[in-house]
Amino acid sequence: MRSKSLFILIVGCGRLGSFLANRLSSKGHSIVVIDVKESAFDSLSPEFSGFRVVGDATELIVLKEAKIKEADIFIATTRDDNINLMVSQIANKIFHVPKVMARVFDPKRESIYKDFDIEAICPTSIAVELFLESIAESLA
Amino acid sequence: MRSKSLFILIVGCGRLGSFLANRLSSKGHSIVVIDVKESAFDSLSPEFSGFRVVGDATELIVLKEAKIKEADIFIATTRDDNINLMVSQIANKIFHVPKVMARVFDPKRESIYKDFDIEAICPTSIAVELFLESIAESLA
Repeated sequence: MRSKSLFILIVGCGRLGSFLANRLSSKGHSIVVIDVKESAFDSLSPEFSGFRVVGDATELIVLKEAKIKEADIFIATTRDDNINLMVSQIANKIFHVPKVMARVFDPKRESIYKDFDIEAICPTSIAVELFLESIAESLA
Repeated sequence: MRSKSLFILIVGCGRLGSFLANRLSSKGHSIVVIDVKESAFDSLSPEFSGFRVVGDATELIVLKEAKIKEADIFIATTRDDNINLMVSQIANKIFHVPKVMARVFDPKRESIYKDFDIEAICPTSIAVELFLESIAESLA
């Protein structure tokens, strides 16, 4: 199997961000993680071989420091939908990152992301569907 | 298609809890939602035809008031893994609810739920897999 290494920029090092960073780093991709809190990086595994940038990802200088211009993929994973939408739009419109993805908390907002050509993943919507599927199965 | 109406008890009326309550109520199931904050019920749709109980679901008297003894399905959806685990265990062990489900935030905890015969759904784990799948597809 062919394996290609990508440069992936992840904003937010909470549960989702750190899991993604650890998994993608272990697959051999180059990762930079940005978080406002240095302590957030404690969730990265000892094997994580990427870079950590402490700062506010809504500031262009922080994104530039994280080498956003070279990123193949940009992923916004913070707990704040407004920040995720804002940094995703910056990645898309200003820095033209080829693939921009974001976690969305509010299922009502998913369509906004589509309008901006950002791939939105909404854990709440997915969880709702999984609960409903399991309940439907128990009725079958 | 045969449609069977269930009595479903939902703990937590945040985004996930309210979405589930609205969807399951619209499918004709009988729903009771418990939340510590009355304002949480504002997320329920005007069509929601179930009952609201304000209270702490870790207290047996609150669960009894919500008629847990008659529940076919119990779903713990709060933002606190400890509360979800505790109320799920109560539903399972004390009240013998036939099907007990819980949202889990910390993916590391999923196995604990299995040991207790509680069906755990972890939105973070699911989101991680979806992000990874999408990245893998963009490499293909």
